[in-house]
Amino acid sequence: MPAPKSFPLPPGTKVLGRHVHLDLYECTAGILSAPADSERILNAAAHEMNATIVGSHFHAFNPHGVSGVVVIAESHLTVHTWPEHNYAAIDIFSCGDLDLDAGIKLLIAEFGARRHYLAAFDRGWVNDHSSGG
Amino acid sequence: MPAPKSFPLPPGTKVLGRHVHLDLYECTAGILSAPADSERILNAAAHEMNATIVGSHFHAFNPHGVSGVVVIAESHLTVHTWPEHNYAAIDIFSCGDLDLDAGIKLLIAEFGARRHYLAAFDRGWVNDHSSGG
Repeated sequence: MPAPKSFPLPPGTKVLGRHVHLDLYECTAGILSAPADSERILNAAAHEMNATIVGSHFHAFNPHGVSGVVVIAESHLTVHTWPEHNYAAIDIFSCGDLDLDAGIKLLIAEFGARRHYLAAFDRGWVNDHSSGG
Repeated sequence: MPAPKSFPLPPGTKVLGRHVHLDLYECTAGILSAPADSERILNAAAHEMNATIVGSHFHAFNPHGVSGVVVIAESHLTVHTWPEHNYAAIDIFSCGDLDLDAGIKLLIAEFGARRHYLAAFDRGWVNDHSSGG
């Protein structure tokens, strides 16, 4: 897994997954209410990252809000929206060499977030057998 | 959202979601290879937390590993496994009053993790209109 712009890991170890939390605040009015909008945008983000879509599941909350997941060959994207707060919680979990930055940029733009919070996490720190470590 | 054992939030604000990262290391040999095992265990965890299952999607990676999601009315659970490292990355995202501790305990036990890493995050920090804040 190529890891530009990151700190080097100890010799003989590697990280299996990259997990991004993307919290979108002050989104475009109305965009967070219909499952079809969230599904369209998450699928577009998956394409933008060069991910391979395996399956997806979106549904509307009662009384409002959307919950959805796109399973990709390289892991997943999820979204949960609170239209009453113009807030959406998005996760991108990747175990492959995806263009995460491109997907993040598309998500922020398409949901019209005027403010966002981004955090990234390494998941699964293990011995790298392939390097003899 | 009841929040025992947590720090108080500033007046007039609230948090919308609770997100748990559960990294399981040194899992039972073989348990991470078949999608059916992961599906059974994640569904059991959802039940244990008193969550309502809305849908699920599990699939096998090539050459090995499992990727899966259980969409619950209160958000989602996901899993990605690396059998070759006896490692599984699990996420629990909750926007309801679930018994997360019970679900976490079941997941650790059923996957037979001899070592785990747990982290919890607040997602969506917003004004609490209902309290007049």
